[in-house]
Amino acid sequence: MAQNKPTIPQGTRDFGPAEMVRRNYIFDTIRNTFKLYGYQPLETPALENLSTLLGKYGEEGDKLLFRILNSGDFMSKVPAEALAKADSSSVSSHISERGMKYDLTVPFARYVVQNQGTITFPFKRYQIQPVWRADRPQKGRYREFYQCDVDVIGSNSLFNEVELLQIISHVFKQLNLDVVIKLNNRKILAGIAETIGFPEKMTDITVAIDKLDKIGGEKVNEELLQRGLSQDAINKLQPVLSMGGSNSDKLNFLQNYLVGSETGKKGIEEIKEIFDLLATAKMQTPLELDLTLARGLNYYTGAIIEVKTTEMEMGSICGGGRYDDLTGIFGLKGVSGVGVSFGADRIYDVLQHTNKFPETIQHTTQVLFTHFGRNESVFALPWVYALRNANISCELYPDAVKLGKQMTYADKKGIPYVALVGENEMQKNTITLKNMQSGVQEEYTLEALISFLSN
Amino acid sequence: MAQNKPTIPQGTRDFGPAEMVRRNYIFDTIRNTFKLYGYQPLETPALENLSTLLGKYGEEGDKLLFRILNSGDFMSKVPAEALAKADSSSVSSHISERGMKYDLTVPFARYVVQNQGTITFPFKRYQIQPVWRADRPQKGRYREFYQCDVDVIGSNSLFNEVELLQIISHVFKQLNLDVVIKLNNRKILAGIAETIGFPEKMTDITVAIDKLDKIGGEKVNEELLQRGLSQDAINKLQPVLSMGGSNSDKLNFLQNYLVGSETGKKGIEEIKEIFDLLATAKMQTPLELDLTLARGLNYYTGAIIEVKTTEMEMGSICGGGRYDDLTGIFGLKGVSGVGVSFGADRIYDVLQHTNKFPETIQHTTQVLFTHFGRNESVFALPWVYALRNANISCELYPDAVKLGKQMTYADKKGIPYVALVGENEMQKNTITLKNMQSGVQEEYTLEALISFLSN
Repeated sequence: MAQNKPTIPQGTRDFGPAEMVRRNYIFDTIRNTFKLYGYQPLETPALENLSTLLGKYGEEGDKLLFRILNSGDFMSKVPAEALAKADSSSVSSHISERGMKYDLTVPFARYVVQNQGTITFPFKRYQIQPVWRADRPQKGRYREFYQCDVDVIGSNSLFNEVELLQIISHVFKQLNLDVVIKLNNRKILAGIAETIGFPEKMTDITVAIDKLDKIGGEKVNEELLQRGLSQDAINKLQPVLSMGGSNSDKLNFLQNYLVGSETGKKGIEEIKEIFDLLATAKMQTPLELDLTLARGLNYYTGAIIEVKTTEMEMGSICGGGRYDDLTGIFGLKGVSGVGVSFGADRIYDVLQHTNKFPETIQHTTQVLFTHFGRNESVFALPWVYALRNANISCELYPDAVKLGKQMTYADKKGIPYVALVGENEMQKNTITLKNMQSGVQEEYTLEALISFLSN
Repeated sequence: MAQNKPTIPQGTRDFGPAEMVRRNYIFDTIRNTFKLYGYQPLETPALENLSTLLGKYGEEGDKLLFRILNSGDFMSKVPAEALAKADSSSVSSHISERGMKYDLTVPFARYVVQNQGTITFPFKRYQIQPVWRADRPQKGRYREFYQCDVDVIGSNSLFNEVELLQIISHVFKQLNLDVVIKLNNRKILAGIAETIGFPEKMTDITVAIDKLDKIGGEKVNEELLQRGLSQDAINKLQPVLSMGGSNSDKLNFLQNYLVGSETGKKGIEEIKEIFDLLATAKMQTPLELDLTLARGLNYYTGAIIEVKTTEMEMGSICGGGRYDDLTGIFGLKGVSGVGVSFGADRIYDVLQHTNKFPETIQHTTQVLFTHFGRNESVFALPWVYALRNANISCELYPDAVKLGKQMTYADKKGIPYVALVGENEMQKNTITLKNMQSGVQEEYTLEALISFLSN
């Protein structure tokens, strides 16, 4: 009986060896940088109580949670009236108590509140784990994907923002990817809204400014009018829309412009301090003050950070900011934090597209021992044992098959060297090493082989 | 308003920094060994179609699957009659199409069948990922836990068994843990059952033999009688029950005993070959032929492997075996494989109990720069930058707080060195390094500090 080939759920992926070594290259680079900066690992479960997750991501987010069906006779808990109506959303709350985590931020806040008595603050943690969203799958959007978050919580110091920007710089330097870091500050945006007399319209103003490049000044002004700003306020905003030049030009302009807003002045002060400290710290990655960054305006309270590559067209590949009340949702007030998140899937696509994955990461095995049968295999056993003890990754082809098939295996697996073992080699206690790329063959003793492959 | 502290679902765990560094030490050791032996990484999604999972783990397993509630108006898909009965198991199939993976083996088989056209066989893969089981939580049993599987599929050669046993030996040598590897072969068990005339009672016989140490020979014989063996068969079995001595004593005995069973003789041949090859490969970890290993008798077809530590009382910490038809469940016949799985949670408990976690893994940060305020922090910025570029993990305390608080931070985080920066140091462009254990303080230039901490 023929069976259909099995499949995986829409929006999920298998990662085979070729993708895994590339993904691990990204994750290892990010993780090693986090460690170098003194951040510590945290892992939280895939499953959280729905009471922890619900209401934290807005109404839309609640709908995108994957919910786990309760075990056992779950239907017995459904009240007759809910059953009679067969209404999914009211039945749901009776048959499901747990969900899959939607991001790493809420579980992190939950962890901090739950363990506040034992955590050493400032708490510098990183977390690299999958999250799940019941989103409609489309190109580049998955239902199961990794997030790479790094945060420090319990410190107001701007030295933390500086450190995170250095981490960003370090990661992309390691990945050999040119990027520009864009920086904004919610307090500046609030100051602008205050200055033109519409403090409650901060988000509308920012969203409109963000469209300047695309739709032009006239259309932006029309939109602002529609969003409820007065003509007078729009007039007052014009110098901001036409603001240009270097970071210091922009800061000089804003310093005058925001002179009447305490919040605005604080925002400028913060950004200037960050620029100054980064200069002291020898930051080389270009930084750009960008007032159009509107990311996370409903929770960021200070710095807003976004990273774009200059090597190809691609959305932001890393982003984050300062939040003053992350743990407030679980009842612990007054704990300020700042963090950024790396977009592993997009970084993968950029490295792939720009051909920047190092070729060496593909060579998971250094050398394959080939042979003509049991005698040669037995001869090779102490060799592979010795190589592995010298930390050289190697394999002995397990089956007695034709040499051609063994060579194909090495070729497909991208193994750079093949050790040939025959009568002649066994007698002399050597092997013949073939460079798979050049075809060159040379004879080695065990000692010489270890020394050659260790370099 | 006071809020209740949030909690996590029963049977799940958070892993904070202290646990994470220990867990990563185990995972890294295992992963690096897999790589050294030429195995390649694979990751499959947490979510699988229920059609992939159901029926693969027996009736009990089906009950222990975590099922995902379908998104949207799931109730509209429930037929009126199923709703009227409110029967959970019949409703379940209408409102849930996906489940969380229960182990790594079935998704691996699914992956191989799905990608059979592009995989290079023999396919040597490892997989380290969490799995989920809706089991009743109890000490040492969790609903979400990691499995560490390593398998080679598409090769019948016993060199694969040899390699996996070497991997086991390598991992526990790296972890500095004394273990004994127990080896059995299903063909020997089948041969014994055949020899005493009850081939269909192989599992009953093995389970009974397994109790020999606990309940004694007389009780075992009683049980065998109850399980349907004849007195004649039980008499014939006695020499096996009293069999002892070294591995070769046992093999010599079995060679005579099983002379009439082709299957039995094949089993002995296989085990002898494995012992011989391991001797050639200089295996140092003790190996023991143990006929009582009854692990996975319903799917293992050849070698059965189990590892126990000799350092404390604890169930098996690693196990596996040869299976001849893993992918048959998805319609791909005749692909033989062999694999083992490491029990990370139990290994963690053993290392913790025997105090064998290396102390150095706890030092996630090498040095903390402390200071008296902004000037000293600014002075320190280029130092931390230089250290990190030299691959030395370090931190600058972000806030201007009392020195005592900064020292407490270093202490709690297990940071071995603290760099003190004051007026005097800034003038001389040096720092004073304090060894947190000995209390000894010494002055360093940047160059000298990097050289000291690099060693």
